[in-house]
Amino acid sequence: MMNNSIENLLPFVLKRENVARYEDGKVLIGDRRKYPFDKTFYVCNNVEEVAEAIEIMVTQGGGPWVAASFAMAMAAKNVDGKSKEEALSYLEKTKTRLINTRPTNTALARRLEDVFQVAKAATINGVSLEKAILDFISDIRDKVYEDYMKRARFGADLIDNGDGILTMCFAETSFILALALAKRDGKHVQVYTPETRPYLQGARLTAPSIHEIGVPVKIITDNMPAYVMSQGKIQKYFTAADLITLDGHVVNKVGTFQNAIAAHYHGVPYFAFMWGVDPKSPNRQSIKIEERAPAEIRSCRGIPTTLDEIDAYYPAFDITPPHLVSGIITKHGVISPYDIKRHYLDI
Amino acid sequence: MMNNSIENLLPFVLKRENVARYEDGKVLIGDRRKYPFDKTFYVCNNVEEVAEAIEIMVTQGGGPWVAASFAMAMAAKNVDGKSKEEALSYLEKTKTRLINTRPTNTALARRLEDVFQVAKAATINGVSLEKAILDFISDIRDKVYEDYMKRARFGADLIDNGDGILTMCFAETSFILALALAKRDGKHVQVYTPETRPYLQGARLTAPSIHEIGVPVKIITDNMPAYVMSQGKIQKYFTAADLITLDGHVVNKVGTFQNAIAAHYHGVPYFAFMWGVDPKSPNRQSIKIEERAPAEIRSCRGIPTTLDEIDAYYPAFDITPPHLVSGIITKHGVISPYDIKRHYLDI
Repeated sequence: MMNNSIENLLPFVLKRENVARYEDGKVLIGDRRKYPFDKTFYVCNNVEEVAEAIEIMVTQGGGPWVAASFAMAMAAKNVDGKSKEEALSYLEKTKTRLINTRPTNTALARRLEDVFQVAKAATINGVSLEKAILDFISDIRDKVYEDYMKRARFGADLIDNGDGILTMCFAETSFILALALAKRDGKHVQVYTPETRPYLQGARLTAPSIHEIGVPVKIITDNMPAYVMSQGKIQKYFTAADLITLDGHVVNKVGTFQNAIAAHYHGVPYFAFMWGVDPKSPNRQSIKIEERAPAEIRSCRGIPTTLDEIDAYYPAFDITPPHLVSGIITKHGVISPYDIKRHYLDI
Repeated sequence: MMNNSIENLLPFVLKRENVARYEDGKVLIGDRRKYPFDKTFYVCNNVEEVAEAIEIMVTQGGGPWVAASFAMAMAAKNVDGKSKEEALSYLEKTKTRLINTRPTNTALARRLEDVFQVAKAATINGVSLEKAILDFISDIRDKVYEDYMKRARFGADLIDNGDGILTMCFAETSFILALALAKRDGKHVQVYTPETRPYLQGARLTAPSIHEIGVPVKIITDNMPAYVMSQGKIQKYFTAADLITLDGHVVNKVGTFQNAIAAHYHGVPYFAFMWGVDPKSPNRQSIKIEERAPAEIRSCRGIPTTLDEIDAYYPAFDITPPHLVSGIITKHGVISPYDIKRHYLDI
């Protein structure tokens, strides 16, 4: 089970049961589109509903792999009693559908492959596929939260008393825990979080979460980070990473890169929390940046921001090259982005 | 009167009568907060209503000085028949109130000082102060539009066929005319305009205006310019300038600076259209950056983007240092930002 002390440090949206949970064959996903205005759960009755929930951004960051893994358990329940071949074929199809929900974050694909292998082993051992998958998810989540805590400790140690800290999008559990630990260590900081258009993860998820753990936070718009830096208000820049390539390119929510350029210009170090390194992503050329519907740029929380006939462009992520990255925060310490290849099997 | 050929090149929101006009002692201001959803005019019955209209962003860019100058005509009408001392004292008070609506853009202060001097001269010549001011505004606007056209010509000549062009906020008449002239010259370009939170000038004013003149334009969010540059889609970056200091610092809508850093990083030249050079603004230290209410960051078109209790920070402008500026587009040509001092009386 998860360590209670970690759970107590986390804000509502990041508590384990609020990210996603499996109940009576249904997957309940904390609806991050509605947070912080409503604290509701999106209920999925089948695999397709989970896939659609991920696609329409019900959850993001560390949420999709959990929801998708639970969808694999759902699929396993559906094929209970079927032949091994039929069961595995169905699970493989399910896995592909779920992987396709997020082309950029390849960690999802690797997690689901692990789940698939667990199911495969279960068909040999003759145990319930659903139970085998659920047990595996529970174990993996324990491990994931332990690793969050290790990275958070290294992150907290990078923070100095009095620091102004910039972040981008929702850097999730490692970052929020790092702030909580820094606060517990007696360090006073001021966080600035860009709102992160078009989905406003910074305004809706990051700022309320940081506020909830009692750390001062101010929202700015996405066009302000460089100016705030020029005023000397920022000493460190921290983000999550949807993917880090073996040669140290950090893929994260669009805007991360331009903040990193501005940070470099102002002499502010940039640290990315490790998440998904992928042996199949050796370099920049191997990255597939998800492009979403232009219509999503033309509105904000459902209200139009321009006319329907105006064209728009929506790349959801960007790529920060390693020379703009001061360190990758792993569970073993803060490593150079140029040294990932040597560590990638265990970071 | 304004040259008809210029008027024909301009989109709705920039046509002279739609910026602001004086009718029967009232000032009608094109309401840019509602554009492009509604094409309405904000009617001001007195000076205070004009001042408030400017403060609440009914108009921006090239609009405030026109509206404020008309407010001076209103004030002149109010003191018709009063003693010279009483009239000038009232006009001076009016001027101060209007100047205080926009602390960053000092061009407004200089224009209103000119208007005040015209009124002062009229008290000596014994003519109607209101008529003297209105005639002066008409003459100045003729001159301003001629100068827009000269700068637009130099801007158009900087554009190459096939260019991708980034802009920021609403670079107004010089920039839109430059695009119209480039199109007339047979050049094909693709413009990218960041939406410009929190007021969405890019999404609401720039994109519809460029679309209206038949030039391809795509909206992006404010966190995307660097990534779009990294894809090789941008060859030139153009903005307006609310103020340029004598030593070449460009003050413009917040975001301009971080785009300029990203442009420099990618080898993309940055050009600012001349607007307000000010002998009283010698350098960075002399600039006063307007800070607006944090509440404006916490909503988008009236819809909350986060919780009320979350703090926010809203500097409305930023400062781009001259080493990031490739050229200042003046009515005499494209000059170095390091050479402004020598030209400033006539650019």
